[in-house]
Amino acid sequence: MAFGFEVTHTEGQARRGVLHTAHGAVETPVFMPVGTRGAVKAITHRDLEDAGAHIILGNTYHLHLRPGDDLIARAGGLHRFIGWTRPILTDSGGYQVFSLAQMRKVTEDGVQFRSHLDGALCALTPEKATDIQAQLGSDIAMALDECVASGERVAGREARPAMERSVRWALRCRTRFLQLQHERVDGVTVTNCAQAQFGIVQGGTDTALRTESVQRTADIGFEAYAIGGLSVGEPVDVMYDVVAHTAPQLPADRPRYLMGTGMPDDLVECVARGVDMFDCVLPTRNARNGQLLTAHGVLVIKNARYAEDPLPPDADCGCYTCRHFSRAYLRHLFIAGEMTAATLLTVHNLYFYLDLMRRIREALSFGSFGKLRLEFHRTFSRR
Amino acid sequence: MAFGFEVTHTEGQARRGVLHTAHGAVETPVFMPVGTRGAVKAITHRDLEDAGAHIILGNTYHLHLRPGDDLIARAGGLHRFIGWTRPILTDSGGYQVFSLAQMRKVTEDGVQFRSHLDGALCALTPEKATDIQAQLGSDIAMALDECVASGERVAGREARPAMERSVRWALRCRTRFLQLQHERVDGVTVTNCAQAQFGIVQGGTDTALRTESVQRTADIGFEAYAIGGLSVGEPVDVMYDVVAHTAPQLPADRPRYLMGTGMPDDLVECVARGVDMFDCVLPTRNARNGQLLTAHGVLVIKNARYAEDPLPPDADCGCYTCRHFSRAYLRHLFIAGEMTAATLLTVHNLYFYLDLMRRIREALSFGSFGKLRLEFHRTFSRR
Repeated sequence: MAFGFEVTHTEGQARRGVLHTAHGAVETPVFMPVGTRGAVKAITHRDLEDAGAHIILGNTYHLHLRPGDDLIARAGGLHRFIGWTRPILTDSGGYQVFSLAQMRKVTEDGVQFRSHLDGALCALTPEKATDIQAQLGSDIAMALDECVASGERVAGREARPAMERSVRWALRCRTRFLQLQHERVDGVTVTNCAQAQFGIVQGGTDTALRTESVQRTADIGFEAYAIGGLSVGEPVDVMYDVVAHTAPQLPADRPRYLMGTGMPDDLVECVARGVDMFDCVLPTRNARNGQLLTAHGVLVIKNARYAEDPLPPDADCGCYTCRHFSRAYLRHLFIAGEMTAATLLTVHNLYFYLDLMRRIREALSFGSFGKLRLEFHRTFSRR
Repeated sequence: MAFGFEVTHTEGQARRGVLHTAHGAVETPVFMPVGTRGAVKAITHRDLEDAGAHIILGNTYHLHLRPGDDLIARAGGLHRFIGWTRPILTDSGGYQVFSLAQMRKVTEDGVQFRSHLDGALCALTPEKATDIQAQLGSDIAMALDECVASGERVAGREARPAMERSVRWALRCRTRFLQLQHERVDGVTVTNCAQAQFGIVQGGTDTALRTESVQRTADIGFEAYAIGGLSVGEPVDVMYDVVAHTAPQLPADRPRYLMGTGMPDDLVECVARGVDMFDCVLPTRNARNGQLLTAHGVLVIKNARYAEDPLPPDADCGCYTCRHFSRAYLRHLFIAGEMTAATLLTVHNLYFYLDLMRRIREALSFGSFGKLRLEFHRTFSRR
């Protein structure tokens, strides 16, 4: 039942492995669809499972504000509340506080902010972020880190103090996490006693800072580690370089999670650089905006050229949408504003992401990931 | 392949039967979910089939305006365009012209109106309504009738001229329908050579007018007949009385279709009065408004009393939603504005309707419909 990870195959820096949680095993490299408020937008759990999702992500910030982690804990935890029986990872809430909440004020203690829902004054500290996730009972909880605005981060100006504060917060998160495992803390219900906690490496685009962050975060001793603070506006080559620098320094016997990335080619490239876990809103958000991700790149369904196109979005795709519906029909639904357009495009985009990860894992088993990577880039274009 | 109908069981006026179409058989009494623009709102075809839908309805007015019946005909007809392989019934477009379009002008020739989408000037005549449906290639097409505003209709003031005009239009529809079967009409592509056409009985709440309408419409000789002009604001008892008066006068060897009805208890009561086919937006529209229809009546999911309710919407229901999700979770999704709430509530409501019809058919096989009817009313309340 306890958290575990084993690497079963490697090819260069790329790894295939298995992650064990109280809610089942997850094969890596893995992509985690984002279920912000306890549901991956526009798709039912059964369509999500049918598309091949084995682990989803929940957003602590959103669930804390509504319906509240107290309510979810009384329901027995997030799995039971939302009826999802497979593993769940929750973020710390920090990223949303920094991107969504109003009037935030950051001190050494934590972040004060106003809810984007009703303006209510709230606070998130390392301890509070840990408590909320204990109540949610996710299989993997994340430490609270300090997120710096993209422009500042890329410039490297705020990178050191944010990295250092993230290390201090990580230690407080870990201390609270261990405390919750061993003693009762008033007002906190631990709903998943097999929860693991990941630390987050920061340091912006400065490789020396990244190295320091890896060492100081790993010294604290989490079950595993994530690379945070990327895909926040920096050029994609810079992101790849930071990942190539950082991932191999992380403990080899633990999964490595690159947060918030990305486009399909990013997944391929970051697997090649040693990443095991990914999450991103891109496939689901783009679906709702009418963008299909295919082996050839992005297909904008509302384009007039698809008005009478009888082909499926992607002729090589095995998803429900591609097996049953034409671009012409999907365009009609999208233009008419039918919700079903969002559902069918989400089904395709997630299947495309999850199938890509399946093919990557298979290639890693046969030592043919390098070939898959070449072939992927031969057809895929960002335009 | 041709259209056919057989009654297999009767109990009082209630009938069980089978409807044959080029796209398969449909057991009656049947409820047809409304797929206005080529999709039943908020639900995929596979969820719809899983809920037990065997025939759906498409709206001629909406499909004619967008994406256009010409485009659909070029795609091979509505079935192929939308990827639905089971039977489809299309309405004539008249009801939507009378309820949605602006600046409509009714003459003996037909209706002139402006599109609710872009204000374009359009015309619908009996011939045009027949042509559009021939291009859509539905299994069952409806004759164009004159719809009178609810207040006028109930008062009986406009009932006779509207009924008489509907009879004249029905004859023109039938003439055009037969012409399309035997000769090529410029600009019209018949995409389903096994299409049937139903006439519509009008006459408001005046039983003498209804009797006259039945006789004059049946004299034209359609494959089957519908009762139109009910569920438009009249008291429910009046509706039941008009159905009880009208349905048994319709040819016994043809299915009888009550248009646009209704609440679950309406279905039970109108089956008892001899109706075989129903359609209504109620289960799908109410789902999107947060109303669940259950054996006990309407459950308004946003009510605070459900905030921590671990029970499914309806403990006796076997739908995907009731088997997996609590009222508390559905309430959370609805209040958060997640599209999935609309999907999950639609899945339940349609399953509830379709399962009710299944149970009615089963009861009719065993001569226990009278008992089912009593038991249904013992628990179901409109409040």
